[in-house]
Amino acid sequence: MMGEASQPVGVKKVWLDCDPGHDDALAIILAGYDRRLKLIGVSTVAGNQTVEKVTLNALGVLTAAGLRDIPVAQGQAKPLIRAPQICPAIHGDSGLEFHDGGSMQDYAVGSPVLEKAVLYMHSCISSHAEHERVTLVCTGALTNAALLVTLFPEVLDSIEIVLMGGCMGTGNTGSVAEFNIQSDPEAAKIVFECGVPLTMVPLEVTHRALATPGVLQRLTARPTPFLQLMHKLLLFFAQTYRDVFSFEHPPLHDPLAVFYVACPEAFKVKRMRVDIETCSTLSAGQTVCDIWGQSALAPNATVALEADISTFWEAMISALLKADMVSPLKSPANPV
Amino acid sequence: MMGEASQPVGVKKVWLDCDPGHDDALAIILAGYDRRLKLIGVSTVAGNQTVEKVTLNALGVLTAAGLRDIPVAQGQAKPLIRAPQICPAIHGDSGLEFHDGGSMQDYAVGSPVLEKAVLYMHSCISSHAEHERVTLVCTGALTNAALLVTLFPEVLDSIEIVLMGGCMGTGNTGSVAEFNIQSDPEAAKIVFECGVPLTMVPLEVTHRALATPGVLQRLTARPTPFLQLMHKLLLFFAQTYRDVFSFEHPPLHDPLAVFYVACPEAFKVKRMRVDIETCSTLSAGQTVCDIWGQSALAPNATVALEADISTFWEAMISALLKADMVSPLKSPANPV
Amino acid sequence: MMGEASQPVGVKKVWLDCDPGHDDALAIILAGYDRRLKLIGVSTVAGNQTVEKVTLNALGVLTAAGLRDIPVAQGQAKPLIRAPQICPAIHGDSGLEFHDGGSMQDYAVGSPVLEKAVLYMHSCISSHAEHERVTLVCTGALTNAALLVTLFPEVLDSIEIVLMGGCMGTGNTGSVAEFNIQSDPEAAKIVFECGVPLTMVPLEVTHRALATPGVLQRLTARPTPFLQLMHKLLLFFAQTYRDVFSFEHPPLHDPLAVFYVACPEAFKVKRMRVDIETCSTLSAGQTVCDIWGQSALAPNATVALEADISTFWEAMISALLKADMVSPLKSPANPV
Amino acid sequence: MMGEASQPVGVKKVWLDCDPGHDDALAIILAGYDRRLKLIGVSTVAGNQTVEKVTLNALGVLTAAGLRDIPVAQGQAKPLIRAPQICPAIHGDSGLEFHDGGSMQDYAVGSPVLEKAVLYMHSCISSHAEHERVTLVCTGALTNAALLVTLFPEVLDSIEIVLMGGCMGTGNTGSVAEFNIQSDPEAAKIVFECGVPLTMVPLEVTHRALATPGVLQRLTARPTPFLQLMHKLLLFFAQTYRDVFSFEHPPLHDPLAVFYVACPEAFKVKRMRVDIETCSTLSAGQTVCDIWGQSALAPNATVALEADISTFWEAMISALLKADMVSPLKSPANPV
Repeated sequence: MMGEASQPVGVKKVWLDCDPGHDDALAIILAGYDRRLKLIGVSTVAGNQTVEKVTLNALGVLTAAGLRDIPVAQGQAKPLIRAPQICPAIHGDSGLEFHDGGSMQDYAVGSPVLEKAVLYMHSCISSHAEHERVTLVCTGALTNAALLVTLFPEVLDSIEIVLMGGCMGTGNTGSVAEFNIQSDPEAAKIVFECGVPLTMVPLEVTHRALATPGVLQRLTARPTPFLQLMHKLLLFFAQTYRDVFSFEHPPLHDPLAVFYVACPEAFKVKRMRVDIETCSTLSAGQTVCDIWGQSALAPNATVALEADISTFWEAMISALLKADMVSPLKSPANPV
Repeated sequence: MMGEASQPVGVKKVWLDCDPGHDDALAIILAGYDRRLKLIGVSTVAGNQTVEKVTLNALGVLTAAGLRDIPVAQGQAKPLIRAPQICPAIHGDSGLEFHDGGSMQDYAVGSPVLEKAVLYMHSCISSHAEHERVTLVCTGALTNAALLVTLFPEVLDSIEIVLMGGCMGTGNTGSVAEFNIQSDPEAAKIVFECGVPLTMVPLEVTHRALATPGVLQRLTARPTPFLQLMHKLLLFFAQTYRDVFSFEHPPLHDPLAVFYVACPEAFKVKRMRVDIETCSTLSAGQTVCDIWGQSALAPNATVALEADISTFWEAMISALLKADMVSPLKSPANPV
Repeated sequence: MMGEASQPVGVKKVWLDCDPGHDDALAIILAGYDRRLKLIGVSTVAGNQTVEKVTLNALGVLTAAGLRDIPVAQGQAKPLIRAPQICPAIHGDSGLEFHDGGSMQDYAVGSPVLEKAVLYMHSCISSHAEHERVTLVCTGALTNAALLVTLFPEVLDSIEIVLMGGCMGTGNTGSVAEFNIQSDPEAAKIVFECGVPLTMVPLEVTHRALATPGVLQRLTARPTPFLQLMHKLLLFFAQTYRDVFSFEHPPLHDPLAVFYVACPEAFKVKRMRVDIETCSTLSAGQTVCDIWGQSALAPNATVALEADISTFWEAMISALLKADMVSPLKSPANPV
Repeated sequence: MMGEASQPVGVKKVWLDCDPGHDDALAIILAGYDRRLKLIGVSTVAGNQTVEKVTLNALGVLTAAGLRDIPVAQGQAKPLIRAPQICPAIHGDSGLEFHDGGSMQDYAVGSPVLEKAVLYMHSCISSHAEHERVTLVCTGALTNAALLVTLFPEVLDSIEIVLMGGCMGTGNTGSVAEFNIQSDPEAAKIVFECGVPLTMVPLEVTHRALATPGVLQRLTARPTPFLQLMHKLLLFFAQTYRDVFSFEHPPLHDPLAVFYVACPEAFKVKRMRVDIETCSTLSAGQTVCDIWGQSALAPNATVALEADISTFWEAMISALLKADMVSPLKSPANPV
């Protein structure tokens, strides 16, 4: 674990729980390089691919981005109750495929910590949360987070949660359900009802953060190995989003949740009751958002309604450029 | 029942099944006076108010609008399986309250036919459907429609259904459910799955058809008793929509379904699978719309996505002015 | 419809709604010949087989048993909401198969009435119920009954319902669901919650009424064509019950409900709340019986717990012998 | 943890996960003194009372019964997803009330281990399971067990589970649900579907193991403080079972599961598929038992159908008498 001495005032400590995943990769880089954040650890969870694959991907991203000192803890291999569903149609067989056939796990160096993610998260977060809450950013299924608050309810005083997931209207992998929540609805129900301060960044926001040609151009402007890697990663993602959802440009879901921690003032939000559907065969994993305030239950979530997307891209590009400066990559064909 | 002789080519026969209700009132008038439609009958169903009250309201609207020759059949008093829910918060104690305290049922003359609506609809529609399908427009709960197709499955060859109801995202009386479908989800499930040609005009469309001050001004331009009545009706509706949903101007849901029959070319639509949630305690009555085409089931509905609202208002105002010309009302204080 | 003049004091009028079906056949005969009952009509519903087949079977049974003056009305061809499920594994391809390959529909003479069952039941029951309630005995899915009370709620003052169906514990076609209720759970929910006086004769009772060799022997004692037919019918039923459920002897479910009307004093019963499961994929159609009285809802059903089986068999055999005396059958190979 | 040296051949190691609770108390004593078993630890879970109270009760029972060297680990304070429900109507305010107003927690000496139950169970069971599986006997909600197999799936090779819970027909705290499973249906679903060898001892068996006057007499024959305590405990339980369920004598549910481990040959069992209902508002927590073998899923449970109750009572009384011999209790009024 890292020392505390050098942390500037106002910097927020972040633990990132993810399933990389193309957009998770950019979330890791934003969490690692945004000046307003201090990334204290990364955990993985089955989702976009198996937990073994996404753990390798996390190690690959951290290595490529010069963040090898961030500990990685491997988490749950499947949802609490349901059979696992992975998403190769969007993220490829490795979970973080490049446009030209390579994969992020080729860059993985090092190993995850020996402890299971839920136990390691608990001890690491507890040791970091003496003076202020650690923000647990979840960009995958909420399985790890649910077990953390279930097994260690005392952690509720030490964390707040910001998650990418859910939707108010149309879903993605479900008609009205978003993939992260749909993957483990029971875990989501536990997390949404545990009483932790919680912010949800739903599809309505992330479907606006498109990696347009203008964005891609800024990555190709500097032909370094690291930025070329990021470019190839986004090209793969763009292609699958075009094929599956007919999106002209791919939406960068996960970094938006990290960006919310760095810059909440760039978001329009609303407090409301959000209930998780766990039973319906039509809509399991739906985040039922009580927008009109009709529920008898108290609000349990801050829901992001809109984000200033250009500010987001400034932060994201800036983090990528910082990572590029310290990336150990010499050339894509000749890693580390 | 009315003769066939005078019906111009291309005019569509419409049966209107409704629960008046402020917006139902305008749907009746549009169905009665749009030159592209021929209204052959009106049936009522419990919804905005009890079936007795909405039947009186239907008679009141028809009387005031000079449409007393249209037969009215009283339908089901409660949903198939669930307890009835009415909506006085929006439509007042009578179901069709005016801004100044009066009510549409004060204008009711005549009585409904003796037969139950489901039986009368069957015989009337059958006799009218020799050469072309009759369009059953539903602007209330689908209880009558579900019983019609259940008891008389042969009617499926004689009708198509256009309904105001459902939503792709946020609901109104439910977080993700619209009132008409939420009132009787099992009836909706029967109707959506019965194989009839079906078009759904959801909240996403009707929430754009707002009775703005500009619209109201066109009603007050001619200070006749009938138009003053319509104006008072809309003022009441505007007030309750402001109080309950914080809408600046009230949305005219129901006439949009009638307008679709008259002028389908004013709508952008998409064929898709729509499943009705009947079990979830969070979302019963949700119209789960498979926008991405992921369902294994074939599309069963044409869903209206957008409408040309100014064209709608032209048709609506035109119908109101025609009604005004034949209205028997002399003065609001001195009806019929 | 039959005249009233000759009805002895204390005789109960019965309408039998069924899906013959082997045990339905015996229910018809018991209803037709028990001296304490007056059978006023028979309606059919999809269940053991398609409604067309079970209607032919009903006509066959009535013909063979000398009951051709009883009107038969064909009812609903499928459940209210669900896809139809039939039960050829128990009742054969015709729905009323004999052990030697023939079928009851070979004996059908005459036709059902022209009116749909729900409408005909309503008018017939109403005309018979001037002085006392008619007992509607249901031995199939409750689809017709549900539509009757939904479309004609005023009939609730004219009927009581006794049904064979449901279970307190283990089911038959479902782990915890009995076939009649499982076939149309939503119809069952409507009937159980409509407020009508209702008695349920569940599997726990009917699984005791076994057609043992001793019973079969009494049928073969008199080698008439009619009794031989009944014997072959029971042999087929015995075989399928042995194959599917490993029952040594087949249970005669349906006549027990008719017997309850004739002789309620032969039953031990308990008033309780019975709720119908309509949502669970594991247990849809379960009759959830509140035996301990823990429900907040008032009891809505009288549940038969035990029956005096030997008294039942006396009544059943007696009815068969009476039918035999008037049966028009000359020989099984040479019907009517 | 205890040494291994003295364990006789054929003795089965047992971890007991419970919520004492009157019948849990006897389960502890049977697990501690049956010569065929070696009790290696006790964990507690919220159920009959709060986890704090049942932990004190476990310590009290172990102390009174001379089993203070058995480690106690305090487990989960509430179900995975649902609100906790406790059962004071049956077990009193303390969870282990005596007939004369005292409570078992008055006898508690010592404390639970510092580690959370799920973590301690994992390390203790792992260290004990080198040569053979440890039997995890669960006599409360399955919350701890579910978390154990979720967080440490590798433990599936080290354990088998025998549980008191569920029912094939009528339930107790639910119409068709038994309290332990009803308390945490999602945990039960995890456990029943995790692939572990699993035996379920349901209400159908335990409702036969009644503490009759004959049984009670054997406890009062020897007027020692410990046996008097046990007698008072059973008198309280008898009274609440009489009041709530009209049982003439109280059923000793939990020791039957321990007895199954000691003496499986005293049970008639059947392998079958058991699914846990987690959604229905009528039947959540029901153990849907596929007795007819109709499920497409493979059997996942051995279900006890009958037990030799007199053999059980011999084992139970024998354990109580052994406990009595080493009990440190001098007189009920003057504990330890």
